[in-house]
Amino acid sequence: LALKSRSHTARRPQVDMERETPEAAPPPTFLRGEEASSGSSSARARFERLIRRVQAEVCAALEAVEEGSGGGGVVFREDAWTRPGGGGGISRVLQGGHVFEKAAVNVSVVYGVMPPDAYRAARPDAAAGVEKAGPVPFFAAGVSSVIHPNNPFAPTLHFNYRYFETEAPQEITAADAPGAPRQWWFGGGTDLTPSYIIEEDIKHFHSVQKQACDKFDPTFYPRFKKWCDDYFHIKHRGERRGVGGIFFDDLNDHDQETLLDFATECAASVIPAYIPIIERRKDTPFTEDHRAWQQLRRGRYVEFNLVYDRGTTFGLKTGGRIESILVSLPLTARWEYDHKPQE
Amino acid sequence: LALKSRSHTARRPQVDMERETPEAAPPPTFLRGEEASSGSSSARARFERLIRRVQAEVCAALEAVEEGSGGGGVVFREDAWTRPGGGGGISRVLQGGHVFEKAAVNVSVVYGVMPPDAYRAARPDAAAGVEKAGPVPFFAAGVSSVIHPNNPFAPTLHFNYRYFETEAPQEITAADAPGAPRQWWFGGGTDLTPSYIIEEDIKHFHSVQKQACDKFDPTFYPRFKKWCDDYFHIKHRGERRGVGGIFFDDLNDHDQETLLDFATECAASVIPAYIPIIERRKDTPFTEDHRAWQQLRRGRYVEFNLVYDRGTTFGLKTGGRIESILVSLPLTARWEYDHKPQE
Repeated sequence: LALKSRSHTARRPQVDMERETPEAAPPPTFLRGEEASSGSSSARARFERLIRRVQAEVCAALEAVEEGSGGGGVVFREDAWTRPGGGGGISRVLQGGHVFEKAAVNVSVVYGVMPPDAYRAARPDAAAGVEKAGPVPFFAAGVSSVIHPNNPFAPTLHFNYRYFETEAPQEITAADAPGAPRQWWFGGGTDLTPSYIIEEDIKHFHSVQKQACDKFDPTFYPRFKKWCDDYFHIKHRGERRGVGGIFFDDLNDHDQETLLDFATECAASVIPAYIPIIERRKDTPFTEDHRAWQQLRRGRYVEFNLVYDRGTTFGLKTGGRIESILVSLPLTARWEYDHKPQE
Repeated sequence: LALKSRSHTARRPQVDMERETPEAAPPPTFLRGEEASSGSSSARARFERLIRRVQAEVCAALEAVEEGSGGGGVVFREDAWTRPGGGGGISRVLQGGHVFEKAAVNVSVVYGVMPPDAYRAARPDAAAGVEKAGPVPFFAAGVSSVIHPNNPFAPTLHFNYRYFETEAPQEITAADAPGAPRQWWFGGGTDLTPSYIIEEDIKHFHSVQKQACDKFDPTFYPRFKKWCDDYFHIKHRGERRGVGGIFFDDLNDHDQETLLDFATECAASVIPAYIPIIERRKDTPFTEDHRAWQQLRRGRYVEFNLVYDRGTTFGLKTGGRIESILVSLPLTARWEYDHKPQE
């Protein structure tokens, strides 16, 4: 796993994205070429349909919670954009709800090009024989979400599912270079960050993740649970960000069909894993002290996201849409010097 | 300047500091060996005396403002620590004052060792002929401060003055390696981050910085003002962090005596540059909207410090004292999705 993580850090392609163009409404697809036709059954097309369906379902589920809590009228705001060379995204954000302080569910589809060095770092296996190669086109699509409820006893949820492809490198100049085959992989996970540990909730959350994993491979849950614990680690604090869940990346050790089904299953587990916890905790009475503790824990969330989170740091460096990237930050956070919590 | 900045980024030595030991009271000096004697006139000893005096004076000035604003009794709390191999620090933090929401003035003295690679990156000039070298001992001492007032019209201040030395590399194995001479340099600066731009305050602040610089070299102020603007840049936002001030690093192009005097002058300018602005703005009436805008600007401060600030990112990576490093973060901050400010 240590090696795995290291190879990951190197995987971040050093690319600058084109500026986005706002769209009045989301287009039917962000794909280009033949795959843009509505009947396309390519992995890209199916994954785009998956993430857009997940976005719609999760947003509807959260709006229903608001509606059932007297928060009728508090709905997701939608911002769509495209990029000149293809791709685009939809950010949906609900802010200031009765139940949710800030909830964002974003999808994005990116057509990009990474320099050969970044490709070699990303896919040392595929690039081994490729001494001289030009820029490598890549495709990335994903759904990404962070949900911060108001109530200090209701946990924050994060999930993200993504699909990545690289084409063979272009402009191979050495005649004997074998070229790299097309590469693809899946990544993602769902994890929970409570301010207060409530065993019943954590058990429920993990059991839903386990059920989703166990349908596919008995090794998935233990592997991806450990990966999650290792990844969401605030090193400078020596603390975990939350109570974990599942996390995986570079997943291509099963056939594409199976892994697409697995990502679909994981994404479909978000609502049953999270909404029952929210329903139980959204109206729990709390004091100013509880709120202050929640605010300090949110400070930790900010620290993790700005210092370690790969999606965030990658997005900040490559010129992604800033408001979509930083929407993962809580509405408010607090840093007290040398705070010593009560037990 | 671009080159200068690049050489800087590489300068961060990759070292892990020893854990700190809390001390009931600050020792008379954090220096070791002969320099620990009270009469030492070495640059290290004089710089340590300077930063400790600056810490005492700035804290006293801020406490006097609290005292004069009905905040009697709100004083700095002090935490001192040492490290087993020498060095240590004193953090002084005032939180929840009538005028200051969170103010920290820290001094630290570090004896460390950087790997030869880090030394080569740090001092390419000195290390050019040194092909094989062992770890390089270094010494760093500095005072660092961030002051966040309550009133949205009263600006945040940051200042930091530091002195750095590296010894010649040890264990040079190539017989013909000339060895590297002992290197030293000064760094630091003072800069202002208002939530609301008040021309009168900004003019006053810059004029005090200019006066301090002009006593030494007419090129200092324009050079260090530009350096400050370039450094405090939130790249992913395309925004400056504040309205600037002065910033310099690697400064060794004058004799040591002159630069020690210059650092002394800059540090002595902190109080006359800042306190008059605080006195003018601390009681300005403000609304909830002003406060909300201040909170969003504090979010930007958090973004800069966690993503770009060299002292912070270096500290987080090398295992410095976390509470002292992150005390620069504001007490509270806020992130609203896609906030569009009024003019």
